[in-house]
Amino acid sequence: MELHPALDALSGLVGTWRGRGHGEYPSIEAFTYLEEVTFRHVGKPFLAYTQTTRHAETDSPLHAESGYVRPGADGRTEWVIAQPTGIVEVLVAERELDFHSASITLAPSAKSVTQVRRALVLDGDTLSYEVHMAAVGEPMQWHLSARLHRDT
Amino acid sequence: MELHPALDALSGLVGTWRGRGHGEYPSIEAFTYLEEVTFRHVGKPFLAYTQTTRHAETDSPLHAESGYVRPGADGRTEWVIAQPTGIVEVLVAERELDFHSASITLAPSAKSVTQVRRALVLDGDTLSYEVHMAAVGEPMQWHLSARLHRDT
Repeated sequence: MELHPALDALSGLVGTWRGRGHGEYPSIEAFTYLEEVTFRHVGKPFLAYTQTTRHAETDSPLHAESGYVRPGADGRTEWVIAQPTGIVEVLVAERELDFHSASITLAPSAKSVTQVRRALVLDGDTLSYEVHMAAVGEPMQWHLSARLHRDT
Repeated sequence: MELHPALDALSGLVGTWRGRGHGEYPSIEAFTYLEEVTFRHVGKPFLAYTQTTRHAETDSPLHAESGYVRPGADGRTEWVIAQPTGIVEVLVAERELDFHSASITLAPSAKSVTQVRRALVLDGDTLSYEVHMAAVGEPMQWHLSARLHRDT
């Protein structure tokens, strides 16, 4: 199926990505995780995004999230994400893949997250990212880094 | 893998569901669609939700959405959903599977949706739902109905 022309600038994301990440936050212990990310298309002007992580030693499931990346207006890129923690994010990248939260909305029983930055760097078959987050009363700070490789 | 005990009341949803639906809204032509829904678990206290629909005659992809269902406080159930239309929903069911939007948040280039009700009825291997929606200046009204059958 042909990629929708509106996705030309995002075509490098399409695929399945696997690798390892590391996370820290003042409210939790530092941790290392294995990650699988997919960006899929169905010929329409969006990419479907799924992510799951597993504990690097026990292989037990840790986090998961899913959503969609879509071209916005004026060269912006929008990314909507739902999480099993009861958090939904709307992010916007003004340029490249540097996404900043435009809004974060919480289910009634979710922990408080107020700001997120997801900075992705795509280099051929390597996808690296950092997540910075303001949550549970802590100021904006680095939370996650991972380096993933395209499953070819 | 064993279902997390917090999901006991939602266990009937787990599986893959297929069927047919019908939609109407003042701003669009009435349409019939084929749908596939999955509710999956990984042993943690949430269900991962995915949905895709296809045109009943041409088989071309129509809508998609994904998210998570999770037990909330005081017997409530929470449901977070992301959509490729740039819409994210946080819904809460006070009882059974009658979900009302607690918040709807829009990506900058998304069309306006202000209120949603997703009323699910589970009867063994049949899952029926209605979606009511207030969007693009129209008042809250019926938008979608579908009847799905568990893939056994």
